[in-house]
Amino acid sequence: MNAIARTLERPAPRPPEWRALSEELRDLYDEIADLLDRDCIEALPGYFVEECLYQVISRENHDQGLPAATLYCDGIRMLRDRVLALRETQVYEPRYWRHFVSGARVLRVEDGVIHATANVMVTEAMSDCEPTILLVGRYNDRLVRRDGRLWFVERSVIYDNYRVVRSLIAPV
Amino acid sequence: MNAIARTLERPAPRPPEWRALSEELRDLYDEIADLLDRDCIEALPGYFVEECLYQVISRENHDQGLPAATLYCDGIRMLRDRVLALRETQVYEPRYWRHFVSGARVLRVEDGVIHATANVMVTEAMSDCEPTILLVGRYNDRLVRRDGRLWFVERSVIYDNYRVVRSLIAPV
Amino acid sequence: MNAIARTLERPAPRPPEWRALSEELRDLYDEIADLLDRDCIEALPGYFVEECLYQVISRENHDQGLPAATLYCDGIRMLRDRVLALRETQVYEPRYWRHFVSGARVLRVEDGVIHATANVMVTEAMSDCEPTILLVGRYNDRLVRRDGRLWFVERSVIYDNYRVVRSLIAPV
Repeated sequence: MNAIARTLERPAPRPPEWRALSEELRDLYDEIADLLDRDCIEALPGYFVEECLYQVISRENHDQGLPAATLYCDGIRMLRDRVLALRETQVYEPRYWRHFVSGARVLRVEDGVIHATANVMVTEAMSDCEPTILLVGRYNDRLVRRDGRLWFVERSVIYDNYRVVRSLIAPV
Repeated sequence: MNAIARTLERPAPRPPEWRALSEELRDLYDEIADLLDRDCIEALPGYFVEECLYQVISRENHDQGLPAATLYCDGIRMLRDRVLALRETQVYEPRYWRHFVSGARVLRVEDGVIHATANVMVTEAMSDCEPTILLVGRYNDRLVRRDGRLWFVERSVIYDNYRVVRSLIAPV
Repeated sequence: MNAIARTLERPAPRPPEWRALSEELRDLYDEIADLLDRDCIEALPGYFVEECLYQVISRENHDQGLPAATLYCDGIRMLRDRVLALRETQVYEPRYWRHFVSGARVLRVEDGVIHATANVMVTEAMSDCEPTILLVGRYNDRLVRRDGRLWFVERSVIYDNYRVVRSLIAPV
């Protein structure tokens, strides 16, 4: 069920060509995190292929194979619609989000598809309190290379929080 | 007003020569974070050029163009004085700070000046409680290369916290 | 007493050959963090040489030279035993841990031994509350290269938390 199998031994050495790929991946993740931190959510769909999946889902539901995602976009049009809807309905109290990405790494490459992951923490600062941890989880991503750049086929944000994340109203 | 413009599309590919520069930047940021974590604040001015700006300012004030920084040092002498003053007046309860830097990256290079940013979280551990998030924000930096090394012309720590950061008595 | 001496000036430039080593180190740290996050604690001993030290110790005790570690494994057999014991006695409430590693870097290389460090934060998510910071600290590591790979001679997890870390029942 769990997309990442449990390993009980030290994994084999990683292919040397993954070193440069990991670097590229890290740059990509940092670039997207930076855009989201600056509230440029409209830029997000530009990183996806047409036939894509973007979802934000709890670890519990993901590990049990339940489809109940907090945010689910099947295809780039749905992702674009969702982003626009979020922008238009933003009537919430001002808050600042900030992404901390750690451990961006290639898991495997199969048939030209790069399976990658990273840990992510999003902090939230609001006017009446100290910054808090809004969400902690990991990215489960699939990417392809086209025209020299990496594009997402899938980005699944799988968060550890048990309770529904309060005020989860923007892509992570 | 905001130093970083809002982008609504996927940005153009980054110049390949920024890859090595980003690595160098990351090393630099990690080195400074490590020094500050070890309470070696006296080493900080050694990373700045004479005519420099070091400030710690809230995101609210920064985005509104207000000059009210929590910590403001105009020139390396002021930065050195401030660091010494902090050392001499340290009569506060023991506490441990720790930096988590994520997403160090080049934003642009103009006239030999490197504009760079990173996200930063500082945790604080005190004797009577679990570690907490002291500050979350980003670095807005300008650097130049001299004698093969990078030096800060500006480091602005722009924090998300709305309230004045409690016990913000050391450089971040 | 403190393993890392306090520096009051900007350190000398780092040897260029450390750049690739730092990259390799970062990959290694991310790989281990990922394994621990997936609860593959059995894989951990596979990264150590026979005559090794693995410990989790508070910064207070470490800095005062006190031997009272929260978790102390002297030699790979003790580390293996400890890991197995943890697995067999796991009767605790479900919880998710997640590692955020920042600033992995080489401190020095002496007689073929690589001294390295990184900052680490571990978050914990349980069923009845938002994710919290379980532990914040740093790795103090010594590594050697054998057969082209890096192996731990020592991993000391030195945490900032003052109080005994609640529920610290797995390697960090």
